[in-house]
Amino acid sequence: MNSFGTLFVLSDYGGTHDSHIGGTIIGCPTGVDIDFQFIQSELARRAPSQHPYSTQRREPDCVEFLSGIENGKSTGAPIEFKIQNKDVQPDKAMLRVLKPSHASYTYKMKYGIADNSGTGRASARQTVCRVVGGAIAKLYLKKFGIEIHAWMNGEGKKEKEEKPPSNFGRVNGKAERGSLYENDGDTFGALVHCTIKNLPSGLGEPVYDKFDARLAYAMFSINACKGFELGKGFVASKMKGSEYNDIQNPDFSFQSNNDGGVQAGITNGQEVYFSMAFKPIPTLQMEQNTIDFDGKPITCAGNSRNDRCVVPRVLPVVEAMTALVTVDFMLQYNLSKN
Amino acid sequence: MNSFGTLFVLSDYGGTHDSHIGGTIIGCPTGVDIDFQFIQSELARRAPSQHPYSTQRREPDCVEFLSGIENGKSTGAPIEFKIQNKDVQPDKAMLRVLKPSHASYTYKMKYGIADNSGTGRASARQTVCRVVGGAIAKLYLKKFGIEIHAWMNGEGKKEKEEKPPSNFGRVNGKAERGSLYENDGDTFGALVHCTIKNLPSGLGEPVYDKFDARLAYAMFSINACKGFELGKGFVASKMKGSEYNDIQNPDFSFQSNNDGGVQAGITNGQEVYFSMAFKPIPTLQMEQNTIDFDGKPITCAGNSRNDRCVVPRVLPVVEAMTALVTVDFMLQYNLSKN
Amino acid sequence: MNSFGTLFVLSDYGGTHDSHIGGTIIGCPTGVDIDFQFIQSELARRAPSQHPYSTQRREPDCVEFLSGIENGKSTGAPIEFKIQNKDVQPDKAMLRVLKPSHASYTYKMKYGIADNSGTGRASARQTVCRVVGGAIAKLYLKKFGIEIHAWMNGEGKKEKEEKPPSNFGRVNGKAERGSLYENDGDTFGALVHCTIKNLPSGLGEPVYDKFDARLAYAMFSINACKGFELGKGFVASKMKGSEYNDIQNPDFSFQSNNDGGVQAGITNGQEVYFSMAFKPIPTLQMEQNTIDFDGKPITCAGNSRNDRCVVPRVLPVVEAMTALVTVDFMLQYNLSKN
Amino acid sequence: MNSFGTLFVLSDYGGTHDSHIGGTIIGCPTGVDIDFQFIQSELARRAPSQHPYSTQRREPDCVEFLSGIENGKSTGAPIEFKIQNKDVQPDKAMLRVLKPSHASYTYKMKYGIADNSGTGRASARQTVCRVVGGAIAKLYLKKFGIEIHAWMNGEGKKEKEEKPPSNFGRVNGKAERGSLYENDGDTFGALVHCTIKNLPSGLGEPVYDKFDARLAYAMFSINACKGFELGKGFVASKMKGSEYNDIQNPDFSFQSNNDGGVQAGITNGQEVYFSMAFKPIPTLQMEQNTIDFDGKPITCAGNSRNDRCVVPRVLPVVEAMTALVTVDFMLQYNLSKN
Repeated sequence: MNSFGTLFVLSDYGGTHDSHIGGTIIGCPTGVDIDFQFIQSELARRAPSQHPYSTQRREPDCVEFLSGIENGKSTGAPIEFKIQNKDVQPDKAMLRVLKPSHASYTYKMKYGIADNSGTGRASARQTVCRVVGGAIAKLYLKKFGIEIHAWMNGEGKKEKEEKPPSNFGRVNGKAERGSLYENDGDTFGALVHCTIKNLPSGLGEPVYDKFDARLAYAMFSINACKGFELGKGFVASKMKGSEYNDIQNPDFSFQSNNDGGVQAGITNGQEVYFSMAFKPIPTLQMEQNTIDFDGKPITCAGNSRNDRCVVPRVLPVVEAMTALVTVDFMLQYNLSKN
Repeated sequence: MNSFGTLFVLSDYGGTHDSHIGGTIIGCPTGVDIDFQFIQSELARRAPSQHPYSTQRREPDCVEFLSGIENGKSTGAPIEFKIQNKDVQPDKAMLRVLKPSHASYTYKMKYGIADNSGTGRASARQTVCRVVGGAIAKLYLKKFGIEIHAWMNGEGKKEKEEKPPSNFGRVNGKAERGSLYENDGDTFGALVHCTIKNLPSGLGEPVYDKFDARLAYAMFSINACKGFELGKGFVASKMKGSEYNDIQNPDFSFQSNNDGGVQAGITNGQEVYFSMAFKPIPTLQMEQNTIDFDGKPITCAGNSRNDRCVVPRVLPVVEAMTALVTVDFMLQYNLSKN
Repeated sequence: MNSFGTLFVLSDYGGTHDSHIGGTIIGCPTGVDIDFQFIQSELARRAPSQHPYSTQRREPDCVEFLSGIENGKSTGAPIEFKIQNKDVQPDKAMLRVLKPSHASYTYKMKYGIADNSGTGRASARQTVCRVVGGAIAKLYLKKFGIEIHAWMNGEGKKEKEEKPPSNFGRVNGKAERGSLYENDGDTFGALVHCTIKNLPSGLGEPVYDKFDARLAYAMFSINACKGFELGKGFVASKMKGSEYNDIQNPDFSFQSNNDGGVQAGITNGQEVYFSMAFKPIPTLQMEQNTIDFDGKPITCAGNSRNDRCVVPRVLPVVEAMTALVTVDFMLQYNLSKN
Repeated sequence: MNSFGTLFVLSDYGGTHDSHIGGTIIGCPTGVDIDFQFIQSELARRAPSQHPYSTQRREPDCVEFLSGIENGKSTGAPIEFKIQNKDVQPDKAMLRVLKPSHASYTYKMKYGIADNSGTGRASARQTVCRVVGGAIAKLYLKKFGIEIHAWMNGEGKKEKEEKPPSNFGRVNGKAERGSLYENDGDTFGALVHCTIKNLPSGLGEPVYDKFDARLAYAMFSINACKGFELGKGFVASKMKGSEYNDIQNPDFSFQSNNDGGVQAGITNGQEVYFSMAFKPIPTLQMEQNTIDFDGKPITCAGNSRNDRCVVPRVLPVVEAMTALVTVDFMLQYNLSKN
């Protein structure tokens, strides 16, 4: 309930306002080269930056490993890590505000919290642990040549390099949200795509624990995710079978990839391709009406420490969760071959 | 891996071509009124019917309970059930065909099966077990007043009664797929919506095991599902925070439900609303090109026993999986109050 | 809760008085040679026999496999099996008797059952499923040379061949219970030993999920088990460290095996050796005083269908549970090496 | 794999030589009164003391809670805690010694560790986390009147107060190990008993997840445990059914408790009584022969920081693990009544 994975398990603890945050990775095979520089570079991708959408808060995230690694290799024992939190003062003015579309109200109802200091685990700060776990998962996957890339739709250089295979749709292009880039204090949603390359066929369980089912579960564990689709996704609901089906050639290669690399819950060796919808970040930098914990009407506004959109910082988190799903199925796959 | 749920667990066995199919439900509380007529009526909703999209195959699904029920009430012991399969002859002509976008190829790669007789668990026949489990889950939920309804988009009487709360979008109306209704042997995709009414707030775990994450996982376990979205879903990715956020009134009621009843992974007491995209059924009643298990080009076509669309038969399956997710979180919720 | 194992999982259903009993094995690797004759021979060891302690009931247990096996090899898919129950009439005279030290009272209190027909899952009949699962586990273990043998203390030829390594104690010799062999209608307890040979070192998790902890858990899942000890076991509680410690030689071999092959929860490559105490079978063939479901004093007696001691029929069950534990850790071990 | 429990879950991290050690408790119901003084008093029972068998090391264990508690009550959210380690210098002389009957060799074989600094999780230091988890479990159980007490055999005042119900056997009296009390540098084993009072009947699952099976699993997770028995335990293996069976009176009370409060895996409302054998602590304060990590013969000796026997410090650990098992089944029990 507080962990992710079945064979390669990440469990973590701590929130925004604790002195540090950390976790344990169970099930990492022995002998994985732990490239610390790579792990830090993944954390740097998640860190606040110069990007116009991002918070200007300073979070120099340095991960410290306490166990499970010797001489730069995983030993097979649990890998424990922690990261100092800096700059942890809670915003007192917001403490008793029910922030709209936020964790405030649901935590109040579930846990009876008296104010927002109790919502620490719901903070996006927690995703730093996912990035550490995901980075180690990626290092394991690397030896099988498996690569994971996430990118935001309609945005910048990265997409140009890594745009989805031709005939993948659902593009909400740059133009249509151009005006949002003006810093009016509002926030905005995002469409994110992700691929997994070089997967073997055969990953995923056939009935309840399908490869795509676990991907969906993983993506919806990320803050602000409101939609997930695989391959053609929602467009498939408007297609005919005769145009949709992915026909195979005599060499078993496929003529199309409308299924997004997963059929009947199991990878087919094609690139896995999926997309996620993220809602606008609920905390605005402009005034909005709401109520406080007692029901009293009040207005609230965030500050310059808040991001304006989940992208680009969510991208390493999407990749991390994808890596955690993938490594788990790869271990299962290897297991079944023993 | 072969079961669904954590506190209320359904595990099942058998496929299309076995003599019977069945399962076990673990964790059903004692004293639930087991309304056998209701369970049969749910099975009847899943059964082939006169509906123009459905197979004409005869499957009079009568469930037999072997344990866990005494005097019409659950005892708390495992509930075992089985259902006879009728009419089980496999289609010999199709045995060695790699049916496009079907389980054939992925099962071949995962399990090394020699022909399609090994794909029995991937058959939609397996969903009969889900409907039994879901029906019992619904009977438990009934005493809390919780109701679950799924419907197909743009279709018929039911939608008129149960259309989504105003301003929920993503409608692909009747008109646009009208021509598909002509029986040209092709199949077509479907958009399905579902709501859960009268849920308490506080269901769902805050980090990895969110209410919506498990719903997504459940829906993607259903054959042919390619997309899942909650509340505004993909539309949210194009919205601004100032128009999206669900503002609360001084009585804690909400002015909108763009979040679809779940915030930060936890139900907020509003109606839960979500949608799924299903791809066209891969088996067509018209010829399509493909290859066989050896890579030899071949054509194949289904027969009149195959459905033309997952709706309407998928609707009780969607509701069943939703009920299984909900009952699990309700038990967890009750647990935390003890 | 109704299944055993984490990577190699046996779940089963059915009891004494159902038409058949069966189960599903999840996680069996692909390509295991399924020797049907061996599986039947294991079932025959569990079946009632000419042995003077055993019931004379006829149970020709023939297992039928429904899935997961092709051409004599496991495919990696779930392996489903079932076995017909014969001779299933319940003993009506005993239906409302609270059989002493039996499941009657605890099932009554847990499930509110009205009579003993509700205790079917507590019946030793259920162990037939364990033997099937264990036989398949043994077939997997065979390719690593791993062998499992259980024997009863102070009894017969088998013990002479397989007596425990010298200086293993706790023998209650033949003489001391000789008189019990006279058929006076009473039942008697048993001491059973078991070894696992040719295990690699490194099996077991270091903190909570130790190799011996799972063995203990497995043995206590067997009906009538009241004690479990590893290596020197209870004798160790009276020893000094200087006489107990297993010292290693320069070639890493051990000078003794007081620890029974497991140190700090992890196998050390020596033979694993453990013992179990089983209480007398609660159903006697002589009159005993008790009460019925309403508290009314009554006397009861079993009949010639009841065993007089858990041995020898429990031996294949002990081995089966040991095999299930071992295969799970072997899979985990292989996993960590990938 | 790194956690204990299914509904009330303790997962922890850290070892002897880390700066601190800690864990997370998931599933604690809301509204439990968290008596911090009680938790500290439990930790004090585990701490090194003036007792002649105990290490003289100073470990003032002060637990700090980071989340999950507000106003002295559990909120239902994960409860995170940590404890500073003091006095953490590893014994350099022992770093490359394969300490006999210790974790050194099995960790070397499992994880390929280069020296004993990698065995931190096997240290008894880890049990401090169990005591914190167990203390919170006890606070929950208190409101049901459930009490847990462990004591060492043949020792002191406590046993006099809490000796087992008459006719429980297996006493190795004070006299027989009297000479061990002289401090000759050797260590010695221990026999420990434990009872659970005021349990309802109906706890435990009937087939694989029996109440006593999980107790056995829990006890064998404690360092140095080599035996577990319930009620009459190993003595039962030498008894006849006519003398063993626990007969019930017309008011459903029992005439004896040879079964130790559990029948067919389920509690029967009588006091649960069980015993554990602990082997001598492997690290002696006298010289013993062994080898180092390279196989070179060497002698080793511990120092005055090492305990001479697991008792009395293991007693709060036994109680903690018992409480964790009990709370889990109580939650399951309450769940089934909803």
